[in-house]
Amino acid sequence: MTASLAGIVNHQVRLAARPVGLPRATDWQFTEAPVAEPGEGGVLVGVRALSLDPAMRGWMNEGKSYIPPVGIGEVMRAGGVGVVLASRHPGFAPGDHVSGGPGVQEFWSLSAEEVKRSGLAKIDLRLGSLTQWLNVLGMPGMTGYFGLLDVGQPKAGETVVVSGAAGAVGQTVGQLARIKGCRVVGIAGGAAKCDWVVGELGFDACIDYKQAARVGVEKWDAVREGLRQHCPAGVDIYFDNVGGEILDSVLARINRRARIVICGAISQYNNTSAVQGPKNYLALLVNRARMEGMVVFDYAARYPQAIAEMAAYLADGRMKSREDVAPGGVAAFPATLNKLFSGENFGKLVLKISDA
Amino acid sequence: MTASLAGIVNHQVRLAARPVGLPRATDWQFTEAPVAEPGEGGVLVGVRALSLDPAMRGWMNEGKSYIPPVGIGEVMRAGGVGVVLASRHPGFAPGDHVSGGPGVQEFWSLSAEEVKRSGLAKIDLRLGSLTQWLNVLGMPGMTGYFGLLDVGQPKAGETVVVSGAAGAVGQTVGQLARIKGCRVVGIAGGAAKCDWVVGELGFDACIDYKQAARVGVEKWDAVREGLRQHCPAGVDIYFDNVGGEILDSVLARINRRARIVICGAISQYNNTSAVQGPKNYLALLVNRARMEGMVVFDYAARYPQAIAEMAAYLADGRMKSREDVAPGGVAAFPATLNKLFSGENFGKLVLKISDA
Repeated sequence: MTASLAGIVNHQVRLAARPVGLPRATDWQFTEAPVAEPGEGGVLVGVRALSLDPAMRGWMNEGKSYIPPVGIGEVMRAGGVGVVLASRHPGFAPGDHVSGGPGVQEFWSLSAEEVKRSGLAKIDLRLGSLTQWLNVLGMPGMTGYFGLLDVGQPKAGETVVVSGAAGAVGQTVGQLARIKGCRVVGIAGGAAKCDWVVGELGFDACIDYKQAARVGVEKWDAVREGLRQHCPAGVDIYFDNVGGEILDSVLARINRRARIVICGAISQYNNTSAVQGPKNYLALLVNRARMEGMVVFDYAARYPQAIAEMAAYLADGRMKSREDVAPGGVAAFPATLNKLFSGENFGKLVLKISDA
Repeated sequence: MTASLAGIVNHQVRLAARPVGLPRATDWQFTEAPVAEPGEGGVLVGVRALSLDPAMRGWMNEGKSYIPPVGIGEVMRAGGVGVVLASRHPGFAPGDHVSGGPGVQEFWSLSAEEVKRSGLAKIDLRLGSLTQWLNVLGMPGMTGYFGLLDVGQPKAGETVVVSGAAGAVGQTVGQLARIKGCRVVGIAGGAAKCDWVVGELGFDACIDYKQAARVGVEKWDAVREGLRQHCPAGVDIYFDNVGGEILDSVLARINRRARIVICGAISQYNNTSAVQGPKNYLALLVNRARMEGMVVFDYAARYPQAIAEMAAYLADGRMKSREDVAPGGVAAFPATLNKLFSGENFGKLVLKISDA
């Protein structure tokens, strides 16, 4: 191994400035570093693929949140999967496939201490492919699993609406809700995504929020009309990944004792003015309903059980997944990340770093 | 009894039009009707006092809510207390004190059928005064009791913030939270109200949201500064009666697993544009917190238990109450109701109808 690392360069992407609105090229800095052999108890990982997530936009902002912001000049935080290239840790051997938080770089070098607190974990490719370990078996899958089941508490026969339906979290939420016997209505941008979640994933219906612009009706009327049409018995659970007008449109249709799971608000993440608060929030009062936030890390102790359940669904065909694997390596990170905010990705967005 | 009713006139206030913004004189109609002996199984009640509540504003609007709107031309819905003047119902005798929903009128005549479904109930003046039966032992008290205890689920040592602290629901919530061992911070308009909830009711602190205007700071900075000062350990429960900027200011200070009880939003009830949604609602996500609505009627089966508990607190002095009893009878209803929206009332607003 030692010989092979000589002269190898680790390409990295660092946060250069806190973005105002949509991240721009000048918010990023490309750096290079040598790749070193791991020290005693350490591990060196070759990164294969990175998870690109809406939450990344929040990590770039100053201020108190559920985790500290990425510091200026630091390698951008990112989840990823890779292969162990060298190890002086008894739990990891070269060739092991692993997942964790390598950040946006090609090589991830962990000290003994970092192995302990980084969440580096071996993954079993018999349960799912590398990219599925970033999707249904990874953070988005865990987010959907615990957000829907623990916070949403679905009961068979209830109507579940999920926005970002073709995205990483949305596809898991919808399929899990179907498995639990719910009626599932997705909201997604574009006919292709809607066709896929209905035709391939078995959602009962999907509302195309971009349709309005095409057919020339008032911007959000297509969503409201879709909800009227596809949720004739109202909405019992809304799993919200987007916020904004769509959240308000769903609030107007909730049932008594409805649960709104607040997972994200991608429509608001690049706002340069204040977040748009849900003006229909008093529907919570009238309907004795609940709006609750969740952060997936709280459920870490239960990931193994959830992964086992999800892997079983993958194996028996009840759960499918779609990853949108973007090429270009770390150099393509800035442009690829922004695809999330325009909704250009179709499925869980993954940045391929290396085959090796 | 028969003789005494001859020629007696029942003065009533009816909804003449659906208000736009703050209700105006032209939204009301004054009518008169004869007072008749009750029929078989019926009861005639002389109304002593009416409860004037922020929720009334919602009942005047068209549209789906937790109860149907008051119809145009109908006597305005109102809770109240009174005395039975005549009865052909075995459960009620002349002289009995009762509570229920008489509406804005001087006499409440119920048929046998109406007695069954109206919620007419005898009240025991040994447990509390007539006006306390409209306050701590009535709807506002029940709202505070079940909203705080069932939805908020306070634990000793937690910090509870309540807006409208000197109002009907707020005074109950704050005192109950103190009894349950919480730190309690009120938000109210004016030094007199703040002094009262701290000095008389034993709140730990009270923030005067009108202070900002007096001392010339930015409108809501006084609230934010007060929250910083008086909630050094953050906010675990926020019981919201007001909505608007105050809701947003508290959201910015909530703790992990905080509970926001949505009881009302009086700051928004007379809006002629859209309700102001809480732009800090993503604090729910970051803090894994919950915002939940409640409607007191859902707890009707448990009112007797709650009334017994609250009456015991009244008896042993741990619970105090303040009612703002307005004179003028039904003719004063329109102007008195609007005192709620300017915050002119100090304590639970009651309209006195009659001594007899």
